[in-house]
Amino acid sequence: MALQNLGYSDQELAEGPYAEFYNPEIGAMQEQVKEALLARNQAHELFPPVEEAASMVEPGYWPVETGYTRAPDSAIRVFCLTKMPRVTPAMWDWWFGWHGCEARRYKLWHPKAHIEAKWADGRDDEAYIGRTSLITEYLGPNIAKAGISFLPPSAMCFDERRLAAQGEVVVCARVGMPGSPLKAGWLLHQLRPVEGGSEMRSRMWMGGANSAIGEDPGALARGAIRMLRPVASTLLPDPAELLVHNAQEMAHLAGFLPELHARFGPEAKRQAA
Amino acid sequence: MALQNLGYSDQELAEGPYAEFYNPEIGAMQEQVKEALLARNQAHELFPPVEEAASMVEPGYWPVETGYTRAPDSAIRVFCLTKMPRVTPAMWDWWFGWHGCEARRYKLWHPKAHIEAKWADGRDDEAYIGRTSLITEYLGPNIAKAGISFLPPSAMCFDERRLAAQGEVVVCARVGMPGSPLKAGWLLHQLRPVEGGSEMRSRMWMGGANSAIGEDPGALARGAIRMLRPVASTLLPDPAELLVHNAQEMAHLAGFLPELHARFGPEAKRQAA
Repeated sequence: MALQNLGYSDQELAEGPYAEFYNPEIGAMQEQVKEALLARNQAHELFPPVEEAASMVEPGYWPVETGYTRAPDSAIRVFCLTKMPRVTPAMWDWWFGWHGCEARRYKLWHPKAHIEAKWADGRDDEAYIGRTSLITEYLGPNIAKAGISFLPPSAMCFDERRLAAQGEVVVCARVGMPGSPLKAGWLLHQLRPVEGGSEMRSRMWMGGANSAIGEDPGALARGAIRMLRPVASTLLPDPAELLVHNAQEMAHLAGFLPELHARFGPEAKRQAA
Repeated sequence: MALQNLGYSDQELAEGPYAEFYNPEIGAMQEQVKEALLARNQAHELFPPVEEAASMVEPGYWPVETGYTRAPDSAIRVFCLTKMPRVTPAMWDWWFGWHGCEARRYKLWHPKAHIEAKWADGRDDEAYIGRTSLITEYLGPNIAKAGISFLPPSAMCFDERRLAAQGEVVVCARVGMPGSPLKAGWLLHQLRPVEGGSEMRSRMWMGGANSAIGEDPGALARGAIRMLRPVASTLLPDPAELLVHNAQEMAHLAGFLPELHARFGPEAKRQAA
């Protein structure tokens, strides 16, 4: 059955070049995700605010690695741990630059939710830091559009030399509304090497004090955004559905990322050159 | 502990004739149902509207077989696959005619939710197509009344000869509010033979464009129902609870349907005659 926006068309399936990696079925959620969904909203103080992000470079875990809450400022905070056997942090660093150039790359990631992706600068080179990815995707039942503006980890106060020394990658982004100066929140995915592969620690802080007008708002903009917060919080996705989305796309891609990276990644490119 | 409306009374348990098939305990939900309940609302375009029902005669599956969504018209769409070892489509065809005559038959189906069933025409013969079953049942925490008006599959554009050739049964119904011309939605259960038994593909499309006043509403009725939609959608059951109800009743009955059919079905009737 042909869908309106989702998945590969018959033409895309026939043409390649990524069609062999396209799997329309999403596997079962990992156990820690199921447990978190059953638990529903947890105590908000178990979910540190974005200001504490840089402490993720320390060994160990946060009090909640997978779960969600609604903070006193109406923000939603959604955290998710994804186990990724066979995957290295470098593969994800490559993926974030590579996927944003084409919808058919982006659709590999979540065949039941992803619709469209392109770079705001119109270029198609494979880099992500300092660029904005314009995406259209389902979050729960509804279609959402967002501008994901990737930042260097240092912008979220990470010690980049220490990350490198530990073999880690941290993907950081400001989430905005395309075509407007409105910022909805912050997004972070840390990749750490573990025995047999990697683990991804995802963090989403959306709405409330995480929203802003522009990058460096003056007093007027801060006042306006504070007034808009009660309205803005009704526009936030359902935190449980956001957790499901993140858990599914990360585990799904991780299932074939080693092979995808081997085929299209920097090593393959160098050999072809 | 005797319940107010639910389950068999001591007298019903003692009297028979179906008491030996009455099991007050509902088994664990099938895995695909658990996964769907955790996933919550999924992308609405993965849930085709009622107009595409007849394509279910094709082999294969829809993008989502078990799950729910809220469509842009505020309709809820709830789909459920139930695996039924040992069961044949013909057993369900018999069941839909047989169960509607007596509450104590209906209660076998879902001992923790079903209260009352009778045919609107007051007769007690065992046929369902073209008749309306007046039922009272719990949906989630609340008691709901409905008139289930069964239709021939051709009314939903199914090719009945092809269904027969494939050994399939499709139970189709319009769901209405008893004593009123209000129609709330559409209901469909397809039974397909599979290795070792059958599978049931259930579809519920409720509210939004699925609601109507009368069978063939004029412009005035269409206008009225459009105005009423926002109110009407607040009256819809919780889609997750509707999924739970369907998954439980179908799997529960399937557990003893072969024996029930052997005891009370057409073969037993013919031998007794």
